[in-house]
Amino acid sequence: MRKIIVIGIGAGDPDHMTVQAVNALNRVDVFFVLDKGTVKQELVDLRAEILRRFVRDGSYRVVQGVDPQRDRTAEGYVEAVDDWRRRRADECERLITDELGDGQTGAFLVWGDPTLYDSTLAILDDLATRGVPFDVEVVPGISSVSALLARHRTNLNRVGAPVQITTGRRLAEEWPAGADDVVVMLDARNAFQHYVDEDVDIYWGAYLGMPDEILIQGRLSQVAERIAAERAEARDRKGWIMDTYLLRRTGHREPERDD
Amino acid sequence: MRKIIVIGIGAGDPDHMTVQAVNALNRVDVFFVLDKGTVKQELVDLRAEILRRFVRDGSYRVVQGVDPQRDRTAEGYVEAVDDWRRRRADECERLITDELGDGQTGAFLVWGDPTLYDSTLAILDDLATRGVPFDVEVVPGISSVSALLARHRTNLNRVGAPVQITTGRRLAEEWPAGADDVVVMLDARNAFQHYVDEDVDIYWGAYLGMPDEILIQGRLSQVAERIAAERAEARDRKGWIMDTYLLRRTGHREPERDD
Ligand SMILES: C[S@@+](CC[C@H](N)C(=O)[O-])C[C@H]1O[C@@H](n2cnc3c(N)ncnc32)[C@H](O)[C@@H]1O
Ligand SMILES: C[S@@+](CC[C@H](N)C(=O)[O-])C[C@H]1O[C@@H](n2cnc3c(N)ncnc32)[C@H](O)[C@@H]1O
Repeated sequence: MRKIIVIGIGAGDPDHMTVQAVNALNRVDVFFVLDKGTVKQELVDLRAEILRRFVRDGSYRVVQGVDPQRDRTAEGYVEAVDDWRRRRADECERLITDELGDGQTGAFLVWGDPTLYDSTLAILDDLATRGVPFDVEVVPGISSVSALLARHRTNLNRVGAPVQITTGRRLAEEWPAGADDVVVMLDARNAFQHYVDEDVDIYWGAYLGMPDEILIQGRLSQVAERIAAERAEARDRKGWIMDTYLLRRTGHREPERDD
Repeated sequence: MRKIIVIGIGAGDPDHMTVQAVNALNRVDVFFVLDKGTVKQELVDLRAEILRRFVRDGSYRVVQGVDPQRDRTAEGYVEAVDDWRRRRADECERLITDELGDGQTGAFLVWGDPTLYDSTLAILDDLATRGVPFDVEVVPGISSVSALLARHRTNLNRVGAPVQITTGRRLAEEWPAGADDVVVMLDARNAFQHYVDEDVDIYWGAYLGMPDEILIQGRLSQVAERIAAERAEARDRKGWIMDTYLLRRTGHREPERDD
């Protein structure tokens, strides 16, 4: 039986690697890399550094797959996504069956935690549905959410209160019902700007764990412009940006029972 | 200046320790332990094992504080919680000022990720408000949420969709508005049982990362009774339980744009 390990490598700092992830790296015969055409050299380098630093002997192969382009011009959005998923699964099936011998172990290195807004597990599910036989193991990683809150030294949730994790696209539509604490990922449109008139604090971080890390925290009404400006400036300078933030609605709240 | 490091040690498996956490351990002069009277020997042992395994020389002290009891009989719930928080902050202030020399580093080892349903950061905030001078550093850890999803090899969120993290107490009141994927923590009452008649899948885990780990996954209507029974049996056998689960509402859904 072939085995695939999906390894969370943390959100930008190689020191986010867990002992479990390091041990997993050392059981791998072939690392599969399925980069989007747009992937940034810095992230490729980080992955290479992780292999260099943590694999104890050098006896592994790295195999580069081709992540198919998604047809963003297509009329039918649903069909385009389905088609893209299918072609991505095709490519992974090819990698696993062509490059992995029986009894061998392949791995995908996934940014942050593999269970948070990442498609690797869904692709492997698709392959299992097709009847491609392999075992899957998942190694959790430090997510950008944990990294963000640690750097701001603040809790994700308030005592006994819920927290919602969502996308910039959804936040731009509306504030999530039922949560005063909201983490936003995948925000290409500064969706926080919709809430500058409300009683909200923001904890923002870009390039978390990396040398260019930027942290800004404060009353949203007071720091929103600065975040938008620093974000634009950094993206121009580096050619890409990854940022995440917590929005925390303030004002009166009851202490909660936490039993 | 004194320094306090709040170190996430992962959710039960010592191999969840990150390189960053290991390095942090090795900078610590005094480890503070502020256990609830109810803390389980297994968790105390796990912490001891982490120190034994990961601290390179043995030159640290462990100082045991006394976590004040909360008066659960008090009439005024709000006053009781406030009073308890104040006494806990008193005890931490005492630990830091009595046990930590100038320029020394103390640490609290926190279960899972320190920013998720844990009170350590709030206590340190209280102390900062009082003017006790020290620096704080937070080291993120693998949360029980990441551990749960990794073990079930499933994503926390569906493509582009939000996820809510909440407590058993809140779930027992109502299904969170605005999320079809809900992670539940701190559930002492099997709150999932309220939703057995709905189209919901559950991914449940107890003692995640530990030798007694239990995983159950399936249609809630079909596995709810088994979870309740295994949970009761395990709690009786071991004297304590820690469990977490994801509820995933199924049924029709649109693919989401993730741009
Ligand atoms: C495709 S998702 C992958 C998330 C990843 N699996 C994790 O656990 O963090 C990419 C989004 O994660 C966030 N992100 C990931 N790494 C980040 C970092 N180092 N700094 C800031 N945000 C980051 C950003 O919101 C980005 O748009
Ligand atoms: C006080 S909270 C602390 C959470 C912790 N900071 C984290 O990141 O996981 C305790 C709750 O976390 C969950 N939990 C923590 N460790 C767990 C484990 N090993 N297995 C299952 N649930 C766990 C349970 O829901 C428990 O009631």
